[in-house]
Amino acid sequence: MSNVETLPLQQPDVTPCCPPLTERPLSAEEAVRTAAMFKALGDPVRLRLFSLVASHEGGEACVCDISDVGVSQPTVSHHLKKLKDAGLLTSERRGTWVYYRVEPSMVAAMGQMLGTRG
Amino acid sequence: MSNVETLPLQQPDVTPCCPPLTERPLSAEEAVRTAAMFKALGDPVRLRLFSLVASHEGGEACVCDISDVGVSQPTVSHHLKKLKDAGLLTSERRGTWVYYRVEPSMVAAMGQMLGTRG
Repeated sequence: MSNVETLPLQQPDVTPCCPPLTERPLSAEEAVRTAAMFKALGDPVRLRLFSLVASHEGGEACVCDISDVGVSQPTVSHHLKKLKDAGLLTSERRGTWVYYRVEPSMVAAMGQMLGTRG
Repeated sequence: MSNVETLPLQQPDVTPCCPPLTERPLSAEEAVRTAAMFKALGDPVRLRLFSLVASHEGGEACVCDISDVGVSQPTVSHHLKKLKDAGLLTSERRGTWVYYRVEPSMVAAMGQMLGTRG
């Protein structure tokens, strides 16, 4: 039994995908699926929040751990939810707080797509 | 003398940046600088065009090489320009056509940011 709550994806086919971008052109379907991940990191606040979660002690963080990003707690929650919807974070509620953790397979997939040829 | 035309960046401080996202939180400034790169790939058509250029013979492509992405040539040009503005492509005009090529340092920087801890 998993202790991570089920991940409700906005786009149900957001899954790790695709070879290095230098290897072959993406199909339209692959591009739709994976652009969503890049888009999720394409906002400065979200990208910063993602790095906060990714680098936080224990590899997870809740809104309660995040204070100095210059946006309100509801806005932080909103952005974390977006990152989760894109499949880049998973979440687990423990008591009052929802803890977020990086989904390594998705981040690895993005890194792999950006892998260089040489 | 370089045979690649000068790269006019919309955001002049878009340069390769930043350690793996798992290493430490990004500063606000770093996040602004690098989110632009992710955003550029956050559109399905642009991501597909990027993969077309990246995987094209010789590592470069012009609009004349791109036909089956389901958008008009002006739209293709518009998206290639956006990728160039984000620093992900460079361009060189040769005769009638502008040839686009991946800027490896920027793509490597994105890949490095997504590098996993383990």
